[in-house]
Amino acid sequence: MGSVFGTLFRVSTWGESHGVSVGVVVDGCPARLPLSREDIQKELDKRRPGQSDIVTPRKEADEVRILSGLRDGLTLGTPIAMEVMNTDQRPSAYDNVRDVFRPSHADYTYMAKYGIRAVEGGGRSSARETIARVAAGAVARKLLSVISGVRIVAYVERVHDIAMPGLDEAPTEAEVEASPVRCPHADTAARMVERIKDVRREGDSVGGVVRCHLCGVPAGLGEPVFDRLEADLAKAMLSIPASKGFEFGSGFAGTSLRGSEHNDTFVSRDGRIHTLTNRSGGVQGGISNGEEIVFRVAFKPTATILRPQQTVDAQGNEAELMMKGRHDPCVLPRAVPIVEGMAALVLAEHLLRQRAQCIVDAE
Amino acid sequence: MGSVFGTLFRVSTWGESHGVSVGVVVDGCPARLPLSREDIQKELDKRRPGQSDIVTPRKEADEVRILSGLRDGLTLGTPIAMEVMNTDQRPSAYDNVRDVFRPSHADYTYMAKYGIRAVEGGGRSSARETIARVAAGAVARKLLSVISGVRIVAYVERVHDIAMPGLDEAPTEAEVEASPVRCPHADTAARMVERIKDVRREGDSVGGVVRCHLCGVPAGLGEPVFDRLEADLAKAMLSIPASKGFEFGSGFAGTSLRGSEHNDTFVSRDGRIHTLTNRSGGVQGGISNGEEIVFRVAFKPTATILRPQQTVDAQGNEAELMMKGRHDPCVLPRAVPIVEGMAALVLAEHLLRQRAQCIVDAE
Amino acid sequence: MGSVFGTLFRVSTWGESHGVSVGVVVDGCPARLPLSREDIQKELDKRRPGQSDIVTPRKEADEVRILSGLRDGLTLGTPIAMEVMNTDQRPSAYDNVRDVFRPSHADYTYMAKYGIRAVEGGGRSSARETIARVAAGAVARKLLSVISGVRIVAYVERVHDIAMPGLDEAPTEAEVEASPVRCPHADTAARMVERIKDVRREGDSVGGVVRCHLCGVPAGLGEPVFDRLEADLAKAMLSIPASKGFEFGSGFAGTSLRGSEHNDTFVSRDGRIHTLTNRSGGVQGGISNGEEIVFRVAFKPTATILRPQQTVDAQGNEAELMMKGRHDPCVLPRAVPIVEGMAALVLAEHLLRQRAQCIVDAE
Amino acid sequence: MGSVFGTLFRVSTWGESHGVSVGVVVDGCPARLPLSREDIQKELDKRRPGQSDIVTPRKEADEVRILSGLRDGLTLGTPIAMEVMNTDQRPSAYDNVRDVFRPSHADYTYMAKYGIRAVEGGGRSSARETIARVAAGAVARKLLSVISGVRIVAYVERVHDIAMPGLDEAPTEAEVEASPVRCPHADTAARMVERIKDVRREGDSVGGVVRCHLCGVPAGLGEPVFDRLEADLAKAMLSIPASKGFEFGSGFAGTSLRGSEHNDTFVSRDGRIHTLTNRSGGVQGGISNGEEIVFRVAFKPTATILRPQQTVDAQGNEAELMMKGRHDPCVLPRAVPIVEGMAALVLAEHLLRQRAQCIVDAE
Repeated sequence: MGSVFGTLFRVSTWGESHGVSVGVVVDGCPARLPLSREDIQKELDKRRPGQSDIVTPRKEADEVRILSGLRDGLTLGTPIAMEVMNTDQRPSAYDNVRDVFRPSHADYTYMAKYGIRAVEGGGRSSARETIARVAAGAVARKLLSVISGVRIVAYVERVHDIAMPGLDEAPTEAEVEASPVRCPHADTAARMVERIKDVRREGDSVGGVVRCHLCGVPAGLGEPVFDRLEADLAKAMLSIPASKGFEFGSGFAGTSLRGSEHNDTFVSRDGRIHTLTNRSGGVQGGISNGEEIVFRVAFKPTATILRPQQTVDAQGNEAELMMKGRHDPCVLPRAVPIVEGMAALVLAEHLLRQRAQCIVDAE
Repeated sequence: MGSVFGTLFRVSTWGESHGVSVGVVVDGCPARLPLSREDIQKELDKRRPGQSDIVTPRKEADEVRILSGLRDGLTLGTPIAMEVMNTDQRPSAYDNVRDVFRPSHADYTYMAKYGIRAVEGGGRSSARETIARVAAGAVARKLLSVISGVRIVAYVERVHDIAMPGLDEAPTEAEVEASPVRCPHADTAARMVERIKDVRREGDSVGGVVRCHLCGVPAGLGEPVFDRLEADLAKAMLSIPASKGFEFGSGFAGTSLRGSEHNDTFVSRDGRIHTLTNRSGGVQGGISNGEEIVFRVAFKPTATILRPQQTVDAQGNEAELMMKGRHDPCVLPRAVPIVEGMAALVLAEHLLRQRAQCIVDAE
Repeated sequence: MGSVFGTLFRVSTWGESHGVSVGVVVDGCPARLPLSREDIQKELDKRRPGQSDIVTPRKEADEVRILSGLRDGLTLGTPIAMEVMNTDQRPSAYDNVRDVFRPSHADYTYMAKYGIRAVEGGGRSSARETIARVAAGAVARKLLSVISGVRIVAYVERVHDIAMPGLDEAPTEAEVEASPVRCPHADTAARMVERIKDVRREGDSVGGVVRCHLCGVPAGLGEPVFDRLEADLAKAMLSIPASKGFEFGSGFAGTSLRGSEHNDTFVSRDGRIHTLTNRSGGVQGGISNGEEIVFRVAFKPTATILRPQQTVDAQGNEAELMMKGRHDPCVLPRAVPIVEGMAALVLAEHLLRQRAQCIVDAE
Repeated sequence: MGSVFGTLFRVSTWGESHGVSVGVVVDGCPARLPLSREDIQKELDKRRPGQSDIVTPRKEADEVRILSGLRDGLTLGTPIAMEVMNTDQRPSAYDNVRDVFRPSHADYTYMAKYGIRAVEGGGRSSARETIARVAAGAVARKLLSVISGVRIVAYVERVHDIAMPGLDEAPTEAEVEASPVRCPHADTAARMVERIKDVRREGDSVGGVVRCHLCGVPAGLGEPVFDRLEADLAKAMLSIPASKGFEFGSGFAGTSLRGSEHNDTFVSRDGRIHTLTNRSGGVQGGISNGEEIVFRVAFKPTATILRPQQTVDAQGNEAELMMKGRHDPCVLPRAVPIVEGMAALVLAEHLLRQRAQCIVDAE
């Protein structure tokens, strides 16, 4: 279990790092949505290895193949299956971890749960699994762009202790993509790149924070009680490998304010109800209020470091581990399209729910 | 939709603040679990209004009635329905918000979504809805205590800017319950109580942070990819009214460390594999590793304040709002049993999943 | 598990025959649907005991109480909980089956699964459980009547070996309700009533067949592959106590035809595409084609008979059983509103799904 | 939606008849189950075209490729994806139905629902979709064989009006596979084969009935109320293309008996409780009682016939249709492995649920 996400816009994913392929089935995308292979590929390209000199050099073109669900550039309404083959496999790179648990990886917990694991590249716990999320997310983004005006933009706000200044509004995709680190503030981005190169040189790694804006979400999306919009976003974000925290709107910092400082005043503007401030982060009572939805996701420093580490083997004997191979010294730049993709899946789900539930006219 | 939680241990809740009752159906609790009304009531008593002089004085005994699923003190394996009647209703207290949107409440978003709302007490968006969570959570806690050694303990770590010192290990329930604010550090608790009384006197409110420890969770609980243990906890926590953030293990602070500082070294101790540190927060790759699971939840300052506020009415006209009635100046003390109950629901779900999936012996 | 039905229009039921109450939570009904207690009660009245001299005389008014989800005669969009108290309880009537398994009842299987059971009235396996289905079905019927022109009518087509002649079109509700046996053909109905009285006099029971017509279902409802409209109807019908079979359209009899005799010719009439015949039963490829949806459900003779029967006790010892108490000699008349209610739940689910999936305009 | 089946043993399928491939993801299969490609292939071989001279001669080897979830002959506990490529595509064979609705096919209803369809081979409504069911069912069968003693055997009981005599017990797989029509009674099988050849010669088609036995199912599988074992089987069977009815145990015929004739007497034998007769069909109150589970599925005559038929085109104009191409004159022989596969999916789901819910020892 655990590899299925969503109810109305449901994705089911498969694949290990060094298996035949990773892929995803999207069930529930409405029919007649214009969709091309390029719509998917361009998002995968933001996630793929080797895209810049601050990410892992593993050589994977990550070219997606659409197996079903499309016809003459339109969705058929039936499942859309997409697959990316694994090509650059170097299983021998994992010989030294076959019987040893890598610290802060999932090796030990997979063995505790399953009694078996695909060692190479972490198997199912590999970041390659996120290909399926980005591909499915690309379908969701296309749907959102066609049936609503939603725009999703995430970026790297902080790497290690290097943070960019706050923004008044969401940056454009071009501003984010201007730097390989995906920070839209050029000076900060340059310093982040330096830091990442420094820690890589030292065989070490760093973490940071991604911020995401969901612009143009209409008021009324989300559910009361359990399936709140922010709750579903939180689950989506915490399901991303290496994520450690989620906050939306005023977040943890807002807990230090008083109610009189924190409440968002309603005003009427342009024939619509707005809030003067947005400490609510675009969601009130689990339901969108039409303001920008803003949230942050914390990512820990990459667990794989190229330094000797103490650990144990499967029998509990002490062991020293020295990882080799090709790894990201910082997951943040490649996390951006994953955060966007997962946010798109959540919004698509809630948009379809909203269509199902739209108010009965009671006259 | 949105009022159902869980798959194998599934709860379905109902009720508005000033309706007939709030309640819950628990479907999936195994048969022959010893369970009494008292098991439920003692958790509800930690949540109920009027329990101390720092919470709302609304007079509700919140006495639970078990409608089905029990027999001679044992569960039948079929749905357990539980109900709490609403008794202390003062609808006239809400006359002034009938046509006005309270800032940072769900009034506007419910209207945007549903085109109708139960005005009194916020209807479905009221904190009374959490009665159902605590009642269902109490069943889950009983199940966890009988079929595993899990202990769940949450407490108030910070109120406004008053934070307790870090703890080496999880406090006992008695230590938490020693203070009405549910902070196990006596000096800090006293200062928190003073602060809450101060802000109430000023008609204002404050927020803070709850910390939760899940002790004795066996290794191997959780799922890869989407239904990670921390992802399900994040959803559960962000679904609680007034929550704004979630972090587990090293959380946001850990993102400032390097990998070499952050990784948890595996060691062998007492015939079992442990980690020397616990920045992983008890979960690696979405699956528990047998260490304590630790997380934090941020709660915003209560939206209801007894001061004049600017807002708009349903027609978009400016309005001044002055709330009256009985409210919590700080939700933290009553949030503790809700955090514990939701954590129990998540763990019960994953414990049942683990039983379903237990490894096929392949010999 | 097992007491939840539906995804978008989700019902969760509770209650044992001699417990406090039986009830249901409906989550997913759109907001602003006009709904009154009377809408529910009138369906329950068709199901309740004591309604005529051919059903069980157990005295239950079965008065429904709506606990949540309504306001000024409109649904709020949030869960609708409904409850019926159990009043006429005679637990002593079950003293002789406390340790003995009634033939063709669920006593033995509940013990095999749960290791415990509520003996009186069969506990959860009692037909009283169907109150929840009829109540939820009444909400679904109201929704269908307001947002679509769907009319649902079921009736008793056969009791034992007494069958009514085939109908050219669906009867009216009044025609069905004209006889206590709910057969719209008066002469046949009279003979059915006599047969039921005869077998009751002999302490025996009979079964039969219910036929159901879903009129006015728009083309395009249903899903391909697993969640076909007929598949969901089949599940719904086979979930009704005492049901043994389901067929739609030409059913089992149609399997004796050749394709050239069986195929339904398409024609154009009144600006819409129709079929000349309806051996498809209104569904093709899992999706409605706009014709009447017609199906049959088989119900076995009531398992409770007032004659001595051989059986065993929980220890496997032979035992003779002589049931007493108040029972239906034929479940068919009271099965009619249950069949209708379950059909309504299936249609409501698919109607909401269709709204969610409605085609993206691709221009 | 609609292409996902099961909750704990969840399959998600994809693929159109003439698309790239058809496939399935199985999520929830426990880890360390021995499983080989051959376990899957041998079931697919029973379903594939061209296997005998009474089925369609479409040339498809239907060779399965396992994409994920396996390692050294054992399942990993994570999703098992399997794929069969479509190779023998003759799209031009469908030129004449591009704008015309084939009678009793899904052409019209897919257009009504989706506004678009993959014309060739019926696209998603093609019987090729059932490859995914058989492949997933093969995994379920392997699981059942390893963790329980369940044996599943289905066979063709009737073709058109040619029925085999009743059997005292379930036949062996070898007895079923002895004839290309999969009827274990040799004389009847021979006559069935003749009939199928006759109708094919006439460009016509026939239907019939498949019977299925589930042997060795332990008592206690299934759920009360909605997810009854027979209800889930009914849904599974009615989801198979061309199926029109389902009955279990005494079925429709049993409705003509009296209760005193129909009830199954309990007896004690071999230290276990049995029933003397099995009109209950192995299920009582939705839960297995340890007897053989027996049911029947009705299949209509194939809709595709090679004779001129009247129909309409998409604009509603009258049209004459003459199908060409390669088709099954009778779906029954190839339906057998599909019925078995779907039954396996239902049993695997309920077996895992039973493990999740196993009774709490209450000492």
